[in-house]
Amino acid sequence: RDERITLSHGSGGKATHNLIEGVFAPAFSNPMLDVMDDSAVFCVNDGPKLAFTTDTYVVSPLFFPGGDIGKLAVHGTINDLAMAGAKPLYLSAGFILEEGFPIEDLRKIVASMAQAAREAGIAIVTGDTKVVQRGKADGLFINTAGVGQVIATHDMGQNFLRPGDKVLLSGPIGDHGIAIMLAREALEIETDVESDTAPLHTLVEALLSSLGNAVHTLKDPTRGGVATALNEMAMSSEVSIGLEEHAIPVHAGVRGACEILGLDPLTIANEGKLLAIVAPEQAEAALQIMRAHPLGREAALIGTVQAEPPGMVFLHTDIGGMRVLDMLVGDPLPRIC
Amino acid sequence: RDERITLSHGSGGKATHNLIEGVFAPAFSNPMLDVMDDSAVFCVNDGPKLAFTTDTYVVSPLFFPGGDIGKLAVHGTINDLAMAGAKPLYLSAGFILEEGFPIEDLRKIVASMAQAAREAGIAIVTGDTKVVQRGKADGLFINTAGVGQVIATHDMGQNFLRPGDKVLLSGPIGDHGIAIMLAREALEIETDVESDTAPLHTLVEALLSSLGNAVHTLKDPTRGGVATALNEMAMSSEVSIGLEEHAIPVHAGVRGACEILGLDPLTIANEGKLLAIVAPEQAEAALQIMRAHPLGREAALIGTVQAEPPGMVFLHTDIGGMRVLDMLVGDPLPRIC
Ligand SMILES: Nc1ncnc2c1ncn2[C@@H]1O[C@H](COP(=O)(O)OP(=O)(O)OP(=O)(O)O)[C@@H](O)[C@H]1O
Ligand SMILES: Nc1ncnc2c1ncn2[C@@H]1O[C@H](COP(=O)(O)OP(=O)(O)OP(=O)(O)O)[C@@H](O)[C@H]1O
Ligand SMILES: [Mg+2]
Ligand SMILES: [Mg+2]
Ligand SMILES: [Mg+2]
Ligand SMILES: [Mg+2]
Ligand SMILES: [Mg+2]
Ligand SMILES: [Mg+2]
Repeated sequence: RDERITLSHGSGGKATHNLIEGVFAPAFSNPMLDVMDDSAVFCVNDGPKLAFTTDTYVVSPLFFPGGDIGKLAVHGTINDLAMAGAKPLYLSAGFILEEGFPIEDLRKIVASMAQAAREAGIAIVTGDTKVVQRGKADGLFINTAGVGQVIATHDMGQNFLRPGDKVLLSGPIGDHGIAIMLAREALEIETDVESDTAPLHTLVEALLSSLGNAVHTLKDPTRGGVATALNEMAMSSEVSIGLEEHAIPVHAGVRGACEILGLDPLTIANEGKLLAIVAPEQAEAALQIMRAHPLGREAALIGTVQAEPPGMVFLHTDIGGMRVLDMLVGDPLPRIC
Repeated sequence: RDERITLSHGSGGKATHNLIEGVFAPAFSNPMLDVMDDSAVFCVNDGPKLAFTTDTYVVSPLFFPGGDIGKLAVHGTINDLAMAGAKPLYLSAGFILEEGFPIEDLRKIVASMAQAAREAGIAIVTGDTKVVQRGKADGLFINTAGVGQVIATHDMGQNFLRPGDKVLLSGPIGDHGIAIMLAREALEIETDVESDTAPLHTLVEALLSSLGNAVHTLKDPTRGGVATALNEMAMSSEVSIGLEEHAIPVHAGVRGACEILGLDPLTIANEGKLLAIVAPEQAEAALQIMRAHPLGREAALIGTVQAEPPGMVFLHTDIGGMRVLDMLVGDPLPRIC
């Protein structure tokens, strides 16, 4: 066989999913990894429950409206810890630098990481610095791994969806992906779209402290967007999810850019949004809690979990139709994070 | 200012040190980072003492005598945890793949990581997969971060050296760096040098369980070699270190290659060796424990810590002279790990 890595393997959508399921998951298999949640969760001896996660950031360009790779690298890992119901505590930072990279730009990125960490109340406690020859990287790549303490007192995860549950979204989608896209290509599109990059742990804390085990799953719809995140949950929990298109908030600038570019906002990456799947009786309360938080002001109830047919997501469209909503296929926007 | 990153910034020697001290450390500063040890050490609430560390691997070539990037990525992070006196438990694995990379090679590397993890009794519990366009990376880069439980019951670190302490080295130096060098360049040097990549946590466990707080510092002399590692300790502890050149074990193949290439084995990277700085009265016991372990059979007592002059390392040469042994300057062997 002569299979090779394609850009689609990095989309966060179907090809990524297949690569992980086909290559990494079987080789590394263990109970913490196998659930394929945003973070691994474990205890060390009789210590508190911990969450542990990692993401590498290869976004291009390095600086974009609303942020930069450093800020993203801090927020992204904070958010994967938060999705496990954890209070983020400590981050590692591993840098790959390309020979010739301006140290002034490195300083800016490092300052931005430090500020993001400070604002989120976490510390970058360990790091690593590698350099590769000119032409063997693209300026700079950053990996962050994170450790947090799980504050959720019940088990959560993408296999905890139950028929009847409500699907909540913390705000408008697609801002991050479209901001990167517009920063990259010199397109003739006039918009003021900015990345939504933000740390979601205080929003999670608010939800968990009020609603406890009514929160069945939390997930940040990053690469692959809301469509991919919900498909993964539906498969993992063997349930169906029905979405109401009209209920899904999308900023006008994002909607416009998506129309021009032929993209679906539901498959575009977000970096400051979360999906919360909650017990139906607490859906309204969850919505109020989100809306009272600065990062959830435009939160919406966008759908419902159903029993049948398992593993599928449906979209009830604005014009009264219904279509299957698949994971992201291909990679329309490579190197979005 | 128009400073730019050079390959020397990735050497692990003086330029790396200056970049970290000048850019990263001041921006991220906190007590856990500031000690600049192999791992950060902290407790979460009243839980056990944990170690947390990260390294990114950019070694070229990806496969080399004695190992491959995957094995290295597991052993290297295990070793930084072990140097903190920790039992390694959980690893993360973040991949950057270059478009076009053969999936068959990826499978081999992943299988090698899985095997190394299994053999060391640890689990890879979380990961990430990014892809960049052809020409924007060099095949594949891997970041691993690790979490371990500190089993040492006393504080250790590179600022714990005391005058009189003995410097022990677990075996011959330079194998990893020279193996990579020879794999890379089609040199006319006939040797059988293989990377020494190996997980050192059981050797550390043996030392700590017998000697406890007589072990003042442990450090794996990776990039920058023994010379750089000892200079960092000497500066951090404000002591002097005197080494006996004749006592330092070097395999004949490494010595020969170093002579031909004009390299100093003391500045060459190792991936399966440790330096232990121990109280003088336990030095002989430490040596026996090391020699009884498969990874310490050729262990040697190579030097002594002195009070003056602080921050310097001296080498008493085979021919009866004495010279200052500096950190690695420049980068004779880029992308060694
Ligand atoms: N190379 C890998 N090895 C092992 N597990 C992996 C690897 N890549 C991803 N995973 C696992 O697959 C799941 C999905 O990973 P993914 O990176 O898509 O999630 P995410 O970090 O939440 O999303 P994003 O990276 O877009 O922010 C996670 O459980 C992750 O631990
Ligand atoms: N980019 C960075 N940001 C913050 N701290 C860093 C960074 N790079 C390195 N450090 C810190 O500097 C110290 C030395 O790092 P270094 O990577 O040289 O150690 P190491 O991992 O033991 O060696 P090697 O990488 O050669 O295996 C460590 O304490 C590490 O946490
Ligand atoms: Mg996530
Ligand atoms: Mg993520
Ligand atoms: Mg390192
Ligand atoms: Mg080390
Ligand atoms: Mg290391
Ligand atoms: Mg990820």
